[in-house]
Amino acid sequence: MQALWLENQKIAMRDISQPRKANEALIRIRRAGICSTDLELVKGYYPFTGVIGHEFVGEVIESSDPSWIGQRVVGVINVSCGVCEQCLNGRRSHCENRTVLGITNRDGVFAEYTTLPIENLHRVPASVPDEAAVFTEPLAAALEIQQQTQIRPTDRILLIGAGRLGQLIAQTLALTGCDLRVVARHAHQQKLLTERGIRSITENEIQPWRWDIVVAATGSSDGFNLARKAIRPRGTLVMKSTYKGDMTVNFSSIVVDELTIIGSRCGPFAPALRLLEKGEVDPAVLIAKRFRLSEAVKAFEEAAQPGMLKVLLEP
Amino acid sequence: MQALWLENQKIAMRDISQPRKANEALIRIRRAGICSTDLELVKGYYPFTGVIGHEFVGEVIESSDPSWIGQRVVGVINVSCGVCEQCLNGRRSHCENRTVLGITNRDGVFAEYTTLPIENLHRVPASVPDEAAVFTEPLAAALEIQQQTQIRPTDRILLIGAGRLGQLIAQTLALTGCDLRVVARHAHQQKLLTERGIRSITENEIQPWRWDIVVAATGSSDGFNLARKAIRPRGTLVMKSTYKGDMTVNFSSIVVDELTIIGSRCGPFAPALRLLEKGEVDPAVLIAKRFRLSEAVKAFEEAAQPGMLKVLLEP
Repeated sequence: MQALWLENQKIAMRDISQPRKANEALIRIRRAGICSTDLELVKGYYPFTGVIGHEFVGEVIESSDPSWIGQRVVGVINVSCGVCEQCLNGRRSHCENRTVLGITNRDGVFAEYTTLPIENLHRVPASVPDEAAVFTEPLAAALEIQQQTQIRPTDRILLIGAGRLGQLIAQTLALTGCDLRVVARHAHQQKLLTERGIRSITENEIQPWRWDIVVAATGSSDGFNLARKAIRPRGTLVMKSTYKGDMTVNFSSIVVDELTIIGSRCGPFAPALRLLEKGEVDPAVLIAKRFRLSEAVKAFEEAAQPGMLKVLLEP
Repeated sequence: MQALWLENQKIAMRDISQPRKANEALIRIRRAGICSTDLELVKGYYPFTGVIGHEFVGEVIESSDPSWIGQRVVGVINVSCGVCEQCLNGRRSHCENRTVLGITNRDGVFAEYTTLPIENLHRVPASVPDEAAVFTEPLAAALEIQQQTQIRPTDRILLIGAGRLGQLIAQTLALTGCDLRVVARHAHQQKLLTERGIRSITENEIQPWRWDIVVAATGSSDGFNLARKAIRPRGTLVMKSTYKGDMTVNFSSIVVDELTIIGSRCGPFAPALRLLEKGEVDPAVLIAKRFRLSEAVKAFEEAAQPGMLKVLLEP
């Protein structure tokens, strides 16, 4: 089958054998999305050789459980062992022996087919089109914020970053009724927010020391310092980008202001699918470009452009 | 009156006029304690000129409310305005216009007398001796951890640092029934813990990625990296030392492991006094040396010795 292969910071289309794993379903990919983590993998920020890609919607072709065959599915990207201390304590996405779809020790979805254990799959409601379902994984990641920290409807929340993930965070935070403002660097990002009635704010307009919760989703370290200025004493700063590299932080001021800093990664699929089914979020407006799988290298070049929203791959 | 005066990173005894402030009680100091923040002030880590010191127990000598005169009291060190956004939202210790006893724009307690608003004072129960009451402020700071984050009785908690503040944190955490281990650098610190049935652990014995909550109370940045290794995914790291200076942190790993980092400073006096009254904590065992106020400069030299526990000043 055709697949996008990463090796030594180079990507290229390859013809590889169709995957087959005992105890895993074989899935034909219907749509796949390129996210910032994919771009960072290509930059060599994390060591990985193989088929990259982890955002997808597909159809189960083969499974030991026939009830799944023909089902349209999305899939949790962390494949866990079920027996380590993290798994036994309900933290399966932090499994100590995990493989991660297209990221760690497991071939991903920029290919014709992929495999995942049935326990990782979620059926996609019939009313949710592929163009929405392919956003389930990043939408779940957005919802991880509400999973980790209480959002009060009275909270003043500043979201820094309005890119691929930032837009989904904005849409879900807006559902809480909170007083939300978003720092959007690009005009088309602002436009998407405005169309949903979500208010933007410029960096100069941000009142220092006034925001109950600040979410940093810029994909760079720039956001942290801005967040640090904006947050009120005893406020919560959510770190939502896995940008690589070290940062210099004044810890004394974090202690004096008694801040809470929360790292936030993968999230729950079931509520993401519920919101998609009810139409409470609209990820499809984020689709910027579509490419055939065979044009995946070109698709990556496009996805890396500053301010670029979602680039999809189709069979 | 006699007072210990800090100016340009030098301390010296001075004869200054007795303080007098409208709307504040005049308090005669009975005992005062030297803490790490005092030592850092002398090193010039924070700008302050005046009488230092903030841990005390005293007696009200003058007050507009006669019911307070003759009362033995301890005092909350943050004096707040009551009208700023932080005060109006119940965060008085984060008042934007605050003065802080012996730390920020307010003369402190290494003196014969000090002043504080009545609203900052707490009466000391008759059964609590001065030698215990003088620890109310750091004991309250220890309890701020439980004020900020839930401690489950099943939690495995690692406390790094067993100095002046660390010992009080250990004593209060032990009351929760949690599975507590303490990294104590000095033999006499370990001995104090053992005598209370609190278990020590060496750095080599610390299992990485296994601790639900890690409290860093070393007064240096050393503790952070050890804490980072010990904490489990989705664990909580409490920063309990206001050491000065920047630190280099790998934020990506904080995001991937979804850690929560909480800065923790001043705490609630009322529960500290309740625990002292019930004898649930025993801070007096921490008293290492006592000096007359007139010997305060020498007392500071002693307090700065590595591993030194509490040095008290008496009139």
